[in-house]
Amino acid sequence: MGLNTAKKIIKKHLVKGEMIPGEEIAIKIDRTLTQDSTGTMAYLQFEALGIGRVKTKKSVAYIDHNILQSGPENADDHLYIQTVAKKHGIYFSRPGNGICHQVNLERFGVPGDTLLGSDSHTPTAGGIGMLAIGAGGLDVAVAMGGGEYYLNMPKIVKVNLKGKLGDWITAKDIILEMLRRLSVKGGVGKIFEYVGDGVKTLSVPERATITNMGAELGATTSIFPSDDVVHEFLKAQGREEDFSLVEPDEDAGYDEEMEIDLSSLEPMAACPHSPDKVVPVSKLKDVKVNQVCIGSCTNSSYADMMKVANILKGNTVNENVSLTISPGSKQVLTMLSKNGALSYMIDAGARILESACGPCIGMGQSPATDAVSLRTFNRNFEGRSGTKSAKIYLVSPEIAAASALTGHVTDPRQLGRPFEVEIPAKFLIDDNMIVEPSKDGEDVKVVRGPNIKPFPKAKSLGDVLKGKVLTKVVDNITTDHIMPSNAKLLPYRSNIPYLADYCLTPCDEDFPKKAKENSGGFIAAGENYGQGSSREHAALAPLYLGIKAVFAKSFARIHRQNLINNGILPLVFEKPEDYEDIDIMDELEIEDMLEQVNSEIIVVNNKTKNKKYNMLFNVTQRQRDMIKYGGLINLVKKNNM
Amino acid sequence: MGLNTAKKIIKKHLVKGEMIPGEEIAIKIDRTLTQDSTGTMAYLQFEALGIGRVKTKKSVAYIDHNILQSGPENADDHLYIQTVAKKHGIYFSRPGNGICHQVNLERFGVPGDTLLGSDSHTPTAGGIGMLAIGAGGLDVAVAMGGGEYYLNMPKIVKVNLKGKLGDWITAKDIILEMLRRLSVKGGVGKIFEYVGDGVKTLSVPERATITNMGAELGATTSIFPSDDVVHEFLKAQGREEDFSLVEPDEDAGYDEEMEIDLSSLEPMAACPHSPDKVVPVSKLKDVKVNQVCIGSCTNSSYADMMKVANILKGNTVNENVSLTISPGSKQVLTMLSKNGALSYMIDAGARILESACGPCIGMGQSPATDAVSLRTFNRNFEGRSGTKSAKIYLVSPEIAAASALTGHVTDPRQLGRPFEVEIPAKFLIDDNMIVEPSKDGEDVKVVRGPNIKPFPKAKSLGDVLKGKVLTKVVDNITTDHIMPSNAKLLPYRSNIPYLADYCLTPCDEDFPKKAKENSGGFIAAGENYGQGSSREHAALAPLYLGIKAVFAKSFARIHRQNLINNGILPLVFEKPEDYEDIDIMDELEIEDMLEQVNSEIIVVNNKTKNKKYNMLFNVTQRQRDMIKYGGLINLVKKNNM
Repeated sequence: MGLNTAKKIIKKHLVKGEMIPGEEIAIKIDRTLTQDSTGTMAYLQFEALGIGRVKTKKSVAYIDHNILQSGPENADDHLYIQTVAKKHGIYFSRPGNGICHQVNLERFGVPGDTLLGSDSHTPTAGGIGMLAIGAGGLDVAVAMGGGEYYLNMPKIVKVNLKGKLGDWITAKDIILEMLRRLSVKGGVGKIFEYVGDGVKTLSVPERATITNMGAELGATTSIFPSDDVVHEFLKAQGREEDFSLVEPDEDAGYDEEMEIDLSSLEPMAACPHSPDKVVPVSKLKDVKVNQVCIGSCTNSSYADMMKVANILKGNTVNENVSLTISPGSKQVLTMLSKNGALSYMIDAGARILESACGPCIGMGQSPATDAVSLRTFNRNFEGRSGTKSAKIYLVSPEIAAASALTGHVTDPRQLGRPFEVEIPAKFLIDDNMIVEPSKDGEDVKVVRGPNIKPFPKAKSLGDVLKGKVLTKVVDNITTDHIMPSNAKLLPYRSNIPYLADYCLTPCDEDFPKKAKENSGGFIAAGENYGQGSSREHAALAPLYLGIKAVFAKSFARIHRQNLINNGILPLVFEKPEDYEDIDIMDELEIEDMLEQVNSEIIVVNNKTKNKKYNMLFNVTQRQRDMIKYGGLINLVKKNNM
Repeated sequence: MGLNTAKKIIKKHLVKGEMIPGEEIAIKIDRTLTQDSTGTMAYLQFEALGIGRVKTKKSVAYIDHNILQSGPENADDHLYIQTVAKKHGIYFSRPGNGICHQVNLERFGVPGDTLLGSDSHTPTAGGIGMLAIGAGGLDVAVAMGGGEYYLNMPKIVKVNLKGKLGDWITAKDIILEMLRRLSVKGGVGKIFEYVGDGVKTLSVPERATITNMGAELGATTSIFPSDDVVHEFLKAQGREEDFSLVEPDEDAGYDEEMEIDLSSLEPMAACPHSPDKVVPVSKLKDVKVNQVCIGSCTNSSYADMMKVANILKGNTVNENVSLTISPGSKQVLTMLSKNGALSYMIDAGARILESACGPCIGMGQSPATDAVSLRTFNRNFEGRSGTKSAKIYLVSPEIAAASALTGHVTDPRQLGRPFEVEIPAKFLIDDNMIVEPSKDGEDVKVVRGPNIKPFPKAKSLGDVLKGKVLTKVVDNITTDHIMPSNAKLLPYRSNIPYLADYCLTPCDEDFPKKAKENSGGFIAAGENYGQGSSREHAALAPLYLGIKAVFAKSFARIHRQNLINNGILPLVFEKPEDYEDIDIMDELEIEDMLEQVNSEIIVVNNKTKNKKYNMLFNVTQRQRDMIKYGGLINLVKKNNM
């Protein structure tokens, strides 16, 4: 049986293990990316490893998250990243140059290569046939140092795309259909590989919209083949030499299969407050809209923007709607500016924001109290917009633009014939906002502003772990809950002591206080704990607060690894009903920890209730070692990487 | 003797008093403007007056300050303003439409009319021959209700502009020269009227740059004649019908005279931390620059932007500089977008921000710690940028753009021949972002989000005023010190209880605490107390904290009136040396207040030191009434306006 695309790339990069689903493997990482909200920590960790120059083919540091700057913190962080990058051989994409995933597609991504990024939407690059995975900053730091990346071999799911999208039906609707069918847990432990006749009909930006929101399925990554469409795209980017065909063998096997008939889809929206609450927009036509935000790494390509510009052309944004548009990169923005499309948007009353993540991460444009906001983004978790009572719907740019004009959720099929947008034969190329690293880095001084604080480090394991259950949370807790991320807190991403005071407060306002009063303790959680962003801060803040273990019904992949990387035990209830048994402030104890850490099952005593629970600890030997030695940095240093 | 321009307009609008410098006069207000950071309060006050529809020729509510929105507060405020405007007959300029003063010049300003604005840079409109004055929100509310505006008749200063500016020397350098000569106190109680041959050589945007920064001189306002240049400008804006000649009589008399030889000027900069610390840029060539910000109501016109675009064209912003550009209005931005100039900026690596106040009010783009930032703005008070340690220099757009390319303060004369920018014969006109008020307002529901809190109201005067001196501050305290204004606090402009906790904290961190513990008290201050912005919050927060009087060596005009409007006594030391005598926590008492309030001199007992001080209370009968009855709202209601 032949190999599928994902396996071909994994095989080429395999350093350890066998490609058997669930087994631990280690792969070589060709390239890395960081953004600024996770990047400061990643580079602090890279420095802690004591390696001089990065050992990847190319590593790029992007500034796209914290660009509002309502105090010196963000600018200090950017200066730190710019100088540390220059010193250690990392390319630096200046603020204003665009969103990391969009710029990576345009200027850096290479089919068939592996990419590790400290951002959960790194899989966007799967749109050009990269194996692109999101990870915590520490994993990325290790990869920059030449270390392999460990993961459990995912199941490869064949997604057979059949037929062709109808007028006004978009790539966003394809991935929303995936979410509708599979839910935000449906991709855990899986790679979605898109194949079939339908693939040929999808452009690179359309493919990238789909791979981008594969993150919302909880997938390890998503991937399209690198075919003629990718070839044309890279040629238009002046990067034909980066192209190679990466396609599944004709007789490729898959672990699972599913099919989507593109011609059967209709315009859809994910309703508040989860990306998998998907319904046809035709069911939402009575929903009045107060705000529309277009952009983000999901839908900010040149083609997306041109469609929006054409819908807006000659019209005026509804009086009760505030419409913002954030083009994805300097390349996109310059092209829109040169060809006149930008003026259609401005004419219509759109507010043009910087080429950056913007409102998607709550970095500005928080809606009014109770407002409805339509967004072309990838996440609509409660409060992520900066307004807890706001109702966020995720839609295609076409739905967004149409609704901005009418003031209510609008099916774009009402607009008549769609506008044809061609992918340009030649993009406008100017890499003048990418700063090259210095030749040897010796004369570069790394600038550390007062906001750059040391990060907490885990200690090696003791023989008894005890403490109180400080809080108990429900299913599907996101990293936005664990470590809230908004315009007020993002500036402190390099300042864990400050951030820790907000840890888990959306679920339990007193959690940080309780943790401090009890010198740490435990967290009890439901299913899919830690879904969402890759932010390591969701492990670092609990570490700082003395959290020793999290007991959950299940964990999201990146967060689980972040916990282990930082020496915190992620334990899974063998019997989910034991979750019900535990109450806040129960006193728990794990004895013989140094022995139990090697076991598949760890026994936890509830001293308050005088009961015992079996907890699953299905991890690899290397992960056990990380827990033993106090996290990945200690392990790497011990192994003299 | 004939009349000068200012007196002609005042005479036409005079309701009470005589045009004798220092005497109280009242004038009829034709038009008003508000922006969103002072506007919420102005409209709350307008509502408190209980008047249905505005009685001005035209009133406009702009949204240009609080546009970042990192929580629901700003969007809530905007929705309140939009709905209250619609109900009461006020035009609403939507967010994204531009900075109030720029849009007012383009679309609303009328030569010869009076304009009262709840923004200290309202005098910008003097560039087209309006008599335009900045005031507190309450004064603007009263004017909207048809009430006259009271002020002391200013001295009219003739500023004779001789000759012509040299290459690369700009209007900004003219007003910086004024500031160099006269200081930030030099304009108190004055109107600067620009005349002479040099005037003809200056375009409307150049004139507006000068009248704009007249605010930094402490002037009541500044004015240029309405002549052929204004005629052409209004014609190009499709508003020829709004034009009328407003010029001084040939034999016009003035209270004072001064002269500037335009040909003798050189490129200048105001150094940290005051707009009057002016030096030639040639003395700053060794200053390295970290950030450059172009825009603000001072320098964001089409012509300014075109000059910047041409300097940037084909170049790249220095690697160590972050360059932001905020075009002044949707009109400017659309024109730049249509003619290609915007793409020169983006190509060069400029970060294009929304058409709004932006970094000028600390609303984003705070520099890094200790950074140098060159800005084309009007104020460089310490900390206003959001970064206390940053060093802000105020310069022309030409100096700013040249320095952004080199990375150090650069004299633009190095660039060779300057670019000629013609004022267009026809601006691009589209008022689709201006919402008209409803016909009668009856069916409009005013939306009040949870951030809209009732404002504090003063009580009528008692016979004894006593309390402690809670703090003692130095000369030139700005309203930025009294009521800090930054991206974190601006969202709470309609929430005085929240803001009060930050009142005067840049000077005395414990001030709000001391005020609360002592149930209010007094403030002692030096010269020019309350300079800077018009924000009424610098009176409302002290009122909320129970401040009964401020003792100062002198007061800035708008702030003094704001104190009186809110029932707080602004008293001036008869002997400035008495300021030295007073210590923090001295217990003061004013007896027979109800009698003394009618006197020019008020005697204050220092019970701690057993001394008496004479305080000057040179105010009008109406102002005495305001103090007696507890502020302007109570007075207006009493008089059944």
